[in-house]
Formats: sequence, structure tokens, C-alpha cells
Amino acid sequence: MDFFPSALETLIDKFASLPGIGRKTAQRLAFFILSLPDSEALSFADAITEAKHNVRCCAVCQNLTDSELCVICRNESRDEGLICVVSDPKGVIAIERSHEFNGRYHVLHGVISPMNYVGPEDIRIKELVARVADSEVKEVIMATNPDTEGETTARYISRLLRPFGVKVTRLAYGIPVGGSLEFADDATLMRAIEGRMEF
Amino acid sequence: MDFFPSALETLIDKFASLPGIGRKTAQRLAFFILSLPDSEALSFADAITEAKHNVRCCAVCQNLTDSELCVICRNESRDEGLICVVSDPKGVIAIERSHEFNGRYHVLHGVISPMNYVGPEDIRIKELVARVADSEVKEVIMATNPDTEGETTARYISRLLRPFGVKVTRLAYGIPVGGSLEFADDATLMRAIEGRMEF
Repeated sequence: MDFFPSALETLIDKFASLPGIGRKTAQRLAFFILSLPDSEALSFADAITEAKHNVRCCAVCQNLTDSELCVICRNESRDEGLICVVSDPKGVIAIERSHEFNGRYHVLHGVISPMNYVGPEDIRIKELVARVADSEVKEVIMATNPDTEGETTARYISRLLRPFGVKVTRLAYGIPVGGSLEFADDATLMRAIEGRMEF
Repeated sequence: MDFFPSALETLIDKFASLPGIGRKTAQRLAFFILSLPDSEALSFADAITEAKHNVRCCAVCQNLTDSELCVICRNESRDEGLICVVSDPKGVIAIERSHEFNGRYHVLHGVISPMNYVGPEDIRIKELVARVADSEVKEVIMATNPDTEGETTARYISRLLRPFGVKVTRLAYGIPVGGSLEFADDATLMRAIEGRMEF
């Protein structure tokens, strides 16, 4: 038995449909929206509409952008011969935060995941292959997540790119900086020992 | 340094401005909105606009409604002589869930809280007094939250209503059903002993 007006119920339902938002939180958020001044609530609605209308994928790297090319692909000072492949736009932000990379990106928008019915043709792999085929790419760095699906996707792509004679590398595995040996898991430690480097 | 398109940044900002939603969660929600089909994303935006336009306070009990009177005030079978006073619309839902109450409600939309600069004139107290003065109310049940502010508000209102000769009661304090004595706090146990009842 619901005693909220239907427009409010609808709003609660919408919030509850978001990932990680339960019914109670959805209620709290909907009440918060009702408590906002009209202009602010409407600007929230506008933000959704605008984001949906204006945000699309960069024609080259598939990163999110509001123009034909993303800011990174428009930046001539960045090395076109180096492509870092990430599974989603958040990966771009993470790598950019390191200030260590001055190449371009390629955003796959997913990873190969048979469990979720995602095959190689469902993510932006062919666009990557076309880029490597068409331009002077020297190295492709695979920076998918270090989990099974990310790993599988990286291996699949590296096999696809082999015929083009491009160097395909992968981010190093190892113990995180500032972490503690004690808390490193076995697989990470194994990789850290395998990948040990000379001082 | 942000590499998200500005429309996406705006949407993330909007989500992050909601209570209890941090930056990371806001990002996740904004990406989820982008991943939705156009129609669903726009219906989310519409839900906000609609809720803001259509939801208002019931002319009698101040509960949220999309018409002049709320469903409870329109229901003739409910006892007009009994008013349950709650601090917000969620209180109405809570009491309704008990299926124990067949009177009307009065929603204060807040509690007296000097710390937050909320005085008696900032919440819907005068509307309650007007209701009690104008109609045949026999009993007013105070069901504000059992905390200092809820208690203060309840006491303030009961003093205001005394001249009208109406009976003012309060929800019983005590140990929660299904709870464990061991985990009951001292104040609750004290109230439970004070309010003990004969078998």
C-alpha cells in the first residue's frame, strides 16, 4: 500500500533502478530532489538530457567526448605511435592521473566475457585493428583490468595485432607501491617475483 | 585535469550533490545513465520534472499528494477525530505499515531544531492548531522520532494544544519487539521499566 503520490513513486522507482541504489536510498534521494528549489531540480533533469544528447564516442579512440574528436586525439603534442588500450573511459582517467603516458588511447567499452554474452565483436576491437592497420602505430600497451576477462581480452587483441608487426605490451604486474608484502595475495607476489628487476 | 566531456562532468556533479553520494558513485551513476537507451534516460529526466511539478502538500494534513487532498484525507472511512502527528511523509508510511491506525495524519515537515535554525514557525504547526481548533478532534497522537528534537517538538505541540481540551498522547517507548534485552540501551530500558504494563 503506497501513500506517496504517483509522480513521487515514479521518481523513487527511477532512482531505485540505478546500480547500487536500494529502495530506502532512492526514497531519500527523491525527497531530496523535492526539497530542492525548482531551478536546481530542473537543472538536474537537464543535465541528464544534455549528457545523453551531447556525449558520444570519439571517432578515433572511442573515448567519450562532446565533439567529433576527444581532447586527447585533438592534442597534436601526443605521440600517435603509442596506443594505450583500456576497457572503459575511467581507465583513461586513471592512466592520465599517473602523468606518465604521452600517447593516445583506445577505449574498448567492455571486455570479452562469454559469461555475460559479450564477444569480441561486441566491443570496439575492430576499430583498434583498423587504427593499427591504417597508421604508423609502433606500440600498443594493453591496460585492461588485471582480472581474467581483462587478461583474456588483452591476449585476444595481442594475437589479432601480431600480423601488423606492431609491438604489443602489457602494464607490469607486481606489488602496489605503498602496499605491504604481508597483504599481497599469492598471485600478485608470484607475478612480482617473476617480473623482478635489477637495481 | 578532466578528460570527461563537460556535459558528463555536469551530470556527475549533479549526482555528487545528492546526499550520501560520493564522487566515485556519482561517476558510476552517470555512466549508467549514458549506457541507458535514450528513452529510458529521458524518462528519468522527466520523472524529476514531473515530481517537481506535480507533488505538493495536502491542503489538510500537509502530506505529499498530487491533488488537492491526499488519499488518506479523501478516505471518508478514516476517523477524523484522531490525528497522528509525524515529522515527515516517511512517518506516514511507517505508521500505515502497522495497519493499526485508522485516523488521519498531520505532517510537520520537520522538527523544532534551534541548532539548525528551525523554529516552531518553520514547520507546519499552525496548520495543526487550526485543524484542532476548527474540527471535532478528540485525540492527537504525537509520533515524532524518539530523539531530543522529536521529543521537544512533541512537548511544544502538546502545550499548544492544551487550551483546546484535546487529549494529546505519545507513542509508547520500550524495547523493540524481536529485539534483545542485552542490546537495549539504558535510556530505552529505563523507559520500558517506567512504562511497564500488567499481563
